[in-house]
Amino acid sequence: MDVKQPDQHPGQGSAELAVTERTRHRRLREQGSTRTADLDAVLRGGFVCHLGVLVDGTPMVVPTVYGVDFGTRTLYVHGSVASRSIVRAPEAEVCATVTHIDGLVLARSVFEHGVNYRSAMVYGVPRLITDGDELLHGLRVLTEHCAPGQWDYARSPNSKELAATSLLALPLDEASVKTASGPPEDGDGPDGKLGLWAGVVPLHTSFGAPEADPALPAGISTPVHIQALGGGRPGS
Amino acid sequence: MDVKQPDQHPGQGSAELAVTERTRHRRLREQGSTRTADLDAVLRGGFVCHLGVLVDGTPMVVPTVYGVDFGTRTLYVHGSVASRSIVRAPEAEVCATVTHIDGLVLARSVFEHGVNYRSAMVYGVPRLITDGDELLHGLRVLTEHCAPGQWDYARSPNSKELAATSLLALPLDEASVKTASGPPEDGDGPDGKLGLWAGVVPLHTSFGAPEADPALPAGISTPVHIQALGGGRPGS
Repeated sequence: MDVKQPDQHPGQGSAELAVTERTRHRRLREQGSTRTADLDAVLRGGFVCHLGVLVDGTPMVVPTVYGVDFGTRTLYVHGSVASRSIVRAPEAEVCATVTHIDGLVLARSVFEHGVNYRSAMVYGVPRLITDGDELLHGLRVLTEHCAPGQWDYARSPNSKELAATSLLALPLDEASVKTASGPPEDGDGPDGKLGLWAGVVPLHTSFGAPEADPALPAGISTPVHIQALGGGRPGS
Repeated sequence: MDVKQPDQHPGQGSAELAVTERTRHRRLREQGSTRTADLDAVLRGGFVCHLGVLVDGTPMVVPTVYGVDFGTRTLYVHGSVASRSIVRAPEAEVCATVTHIDGLVLARSVFEHGVNYRSAMVYGVPRLITDGDELLHGLRVLTEHCAPGQWDYARSPNSKELAATSLLALPLDEASVKTASGPPEDGDGPDGKLGLWAGVVPLHTSFGAPEADPALPAGISTPVHIQALGGGRPGS
């Protein structure tokens, strides 16, 4: 079967070490990775993570906007719910998961059905940012992650707005990446002779054309950096 | 501002009660809902949730395939990681979150930036399904949720495959829905006079054309129920 994961290609650094006899016998559709490049690719491709926090002893999973400072290896996560949980339990671990769904895998047998995806899970104890300069930096990272060019274009936060902003910093120290790709795997076995269709229905996610605020006065054209988002995929 | 949430429309039942003087003064872009119809709409529109489970005292957020039995109000969640956590802590609560990202909201001020989304959070103590008949039922619900028509088309699981299947049932008793929609909100204030573009860059998610497994023998055409997925949105 055609293996599409880049970490299976020879000559690309540390990934080769992982392809031992044992890993060769694992299921090929699903791959784990601890390569920084794979983690970064997943993080670059989105702007909303699902943050798991502990609230009164039970997990709560909140979708939150994020941005990544790849220089300092820091994930910045926006959101008041998460921040409140941290104020209540300052040393509590969280898990931030970013997932891209690439398609439905329809096999001959129900058992072999699945989903193609790329997912990153980042674990750690987040830090609530209170310093004004760091808040500005984190917001810049987050804004530029979502819409490159937007930080310099939009009006910067004032001190009152900064005081009302909840931003967490989570180091990218402990993370794992899991992906699944490619066609179903039951074509080679006896189910391949059932005469049933099998394959993948891909799921595409892309930005559409920017839609101006109805309140926008006439004569303000869409800036080039926002036009550039239209039609593209997040992070591209 | 134009409010697009259906629960703001008059004459649609319980939603009207929520629109009191207090709720009228809340931010209009973001809306909470406890209406069953709103919950179901979010659940119908996806097939992967982010399941938050407690592992060794810390939250873990795992993307997992789900399906909904709207008759018994049961969320079926697939996955071995979640199942293992439940075997270790049978009475532990989980949180299953389904999120659809609809667009980036680019305002005049960084502070008013945001994301348009629809999200449902389901809380509860899940039950690991061990009964063979219920496993079959749950898998049918899950398969039909993802790809209607596929359960009758594909080969059903045999007893060995059922024994290797991990499926959880979570009642839809405790859930909340949160949505954000519409343009940015700083057009009416002083920032509206800055001469900056503002609006929404919509994010579209849709199935592409089905891609046949390269191992598929010649002469097997794509079934109508799978063709019907192509070009559509999940759950539509």
